[in-house]
Amino acid sequence: MNKSRLEAFSDGVFAIIITIMVLELKIPDDTSWISIRPLAPVFLSYILSFIFIAIYWVNHHHLMHTLKSVHASVMWSNMLLLFFLSFVPFVTGWMGKTNFDKTTVAIYGGLLISCGFSFTLLGNAIRKTYKGETKLSQAVAKSDKKGLVSTILYAASIPIALFVNPAISAVLFLLVSVMWLIPSKAIEDALADE
Amino acid sequence: MNKSRLEAFSDGVFAIIITIMVLELKIPDDTSWISIRPLAPVFLSYILSFIFIAIYWVNHHHLMHTLKSVHASVMWSNMLLLFFLSFVPFVTGWMGKTNFDKTTVAIYGGLLISCGFSFTLLGNAIRKTYKGETKLSQAVAKSDKKGLVSTILYAASIPIALFVNPAISAVLFLLVSVMWLIPSKAIEDALADE
Amino acid sequence: MNKSRLEAFSDGVFAIIITIMVLELKIPDDTSWISIRPLAPVFLSYILSFIFIAIYWVNHHHLMHTLKSVHASVMWSNMLLLFFLSFVPFVTGWMGKTNFDKTTVAIYGGLLISCGFSFTLLGNAIRKTYKGETKLSQAVAKSDKKGLVSTILYAASIPIALFVNPAISAVLFLLVSVMWLIPSKAIEDALADE
Amino acid sequence: MNKSRLEAFSDGVFAIIITIMVLELKIPDDTSWISIRPLAPVFLSYILSFIFIAIYWVNHHHLMHTLKSVHASVMWSNMLLLFFLSFVPFVTGWMGKTNFDKTTVAIYGGLLISCGFSFTLLGNAIRKTYKGETKLSQAVAKSDKKGLVSTILYAASIPIALFVNPAISAVLFLLVSVMWLIPSKAIEDALADE
Repeated sequence: MNKSRLEAFSDGVFAIIITIMVLELKIPDDTSWISIRPLAPVFLSYILSFIFIAIYWVNHHHLMHTLKSVHASVMWSNMLLLFFLSFVPFVTGWMGKTNFDKTTVAIYGGLLISCGFSFTLLGNAIRKTYKGETKLSQAVAKSDKKGLVSTILYAASIPIALFVNPAISAVLFLLVSVMWLIPSKAIEDALADE
Repeated sequence: MNKSRLEAFSDGVFAIIITIMVLELKIPDDTSWISIRPLAPVFLSYILSFIFIAIYWVNHHHLMHTLKSVHASVMWSNMLLLFFLSFVPFVTGWMGKTNFDKTTVAIYGGLLISCGFSFTLLGNAIRKTYKGETKLSQAVAKSDKKGLVSTILYAASIPIALFVNPAISAVLFLLVSVMWLIPSKAIEDALADE
Repeated sequence: MNKSRLEAFSDGVFAIIITIMVLELKIPDDTSWISIRPLAPVFLSYILSFIFIAIYWVNHHHLMHTLKSVHASVMWSNMLLLFFLSFVPFVTGWMGKTNFDKTTVAIYGGLLISCGFSFTLLGNAIRKTYKGETKLSQAVAKSDKKGLVSTILYAASIPIALFVNPAISAVLFLLVSVMWLIPSKAIEDALADE
Repeated sequence: MNKSRLEAFSDGVFAIIITIMVLELKIPDDTSWISIRPLAPVFLSYILSFIFIAIYWVNHHHLMHTLKSVHASVMWSNMLLLFFLSFVPFVTGWMGKTNFDKTTVAIYGGLLISCGFSFTLLGNAIRKTYKGETKLSQAVAKSDKKGLVSTILYAASIPIALFVNPAISAVLFLLVSVMWLIPSKAIEDALADE
């Protein structure tokens, strides 16, 4: 129905999430090393989450592009995605404040799985809105496969953070990010063919 | 006149309200149980209010869809709705911080009534903008009836919270939410028929 | 050139200003009268400023509606307006926190003059973008006269707050608000005639 | 592909950045000179950064106007620009809180270089989206030259802040701002010619 308003609302939430994260960087009282030092992990976690949200936005943008009509299922799976994304600033700040403590890294991994899961739900809901357009369906389905690989890696990051080393989990998060940096070529081609 | 700008402004306010609520989840200094424990009721009240704002957004989106022309009455009843919604983060945080204290639950019930009341006002103002389109009018009027039932349940939640048990009120809030999860089928049909 | 983007950016700033004001309502730790009492003036100043920003948005929306093309002068006078409006949450919170202290009420009056002045500048910049469309020009010019009356009342509110009684100034602010509640009928008629 | 959504998202981030900066102006408890005094440098740094963000928005708006199609390179260089801009509130608040301490002024200079650099990257990415449209290319390239001059002045401001006087650097920042206040006439002409 009114796809543009769904996009506008989502864009607003994305823009706010990505910007309020920086508010966790508490302004130090002076420029001494002691004051700046604790900011380093907060800064690192901010960069990680900025990339993460930016990737979601780009892929969301791509996925929405393929949307033909707005059903209740699309609206609510989109809300679920925004719900999980809205926790990113909190968990990011927590991970930074505790200097990448293993528990917070594991929770971050769990949050990423939840976001990925609801993104897959959204993809499924959108795919149901076009019938018979097989090429586009296949492209979105392919993108879902990338989602599956991400989920497995995120799931692995939780025990790794808790029992091996949270740093390895952080590297895993970055690896998954790199995989998503290039938006789905298949979707672009399918759209170009229409 | 310029319906899209009214929607854009409302979307902006909705997006900010739903996102700043999460700022009430204060980041704990460590990962101990003592630090995390007090977050549980804040977390619960956040989920409740997220659903609540999301439902308002979906229904607002539906109602606006039926708008034919922007009158001053539509603008100001929309502003009244946004005014009451802007208190949701404050009351949500308060309810969470005080572990669902009976007074805050009663105030939350009162806020929900105010939001519902101004949504009904908005519906009336919008209905006046189309003359003779009886099918759509009836559909919006039907949606108003759902609003009346909600108001009665919200009104009941106030004495229940104060004199019986705030938990019953919280369950009532959830029940009303479920009732609104599916946007008005009648409006969708009426729009489809046009 | 791209009027819609100017509107979108302005809408974003308006939406954020009107929503972050509520963050000044600090959540009390309990529900005792002692905890809630200091919130009363903050609450009152919030209502005043909400009405104030809402009126600006409605009138901005009307004024922009008459815009034919985006010149640098329109862009920068709009930026000046947003600059002054961005101080509203700060001065509102200050006025509330100090229980309508006379100095803060006088500063609030000064801020309102600055906002009104830059709104007039914007009106002038916009009027210059259409040549010979006399009816619309006259309507916008008429709206400028309402602005002049507001400025005189705001200017009067400053010495009244400082030397007589800040409460009288607050009443003056409300009076001016009422005057602006109804958007310019003249502009609407002129637009309808086109 | 969907240029309007890229603009909407960027507008959202710009609007939030420019507005949350004012949250660094902590509301004083009273109106005494001792309470207000420390706000002066914060206020000054806010004005400087407001102008700075406003200029970026105006130029971003101009540059995007020339965009023919959205490539991944445009999306990611835009994200890089937003990433650096998102640090402006933090560094602005820091510079204000430390009363324009030489280290923070140097960091502010470094941030301005990073923003300018990513803006140039964005310009290059956009220029690649139109082939053979030489007049527009030249206009954007000319705008890049202005960017080069800015970068040199910003680079100079860093050693000046650290070893000579941070006030001279602040004046340099203002000078560069003035240079950018008028959006590129060349781009406007090239667009008008099309």
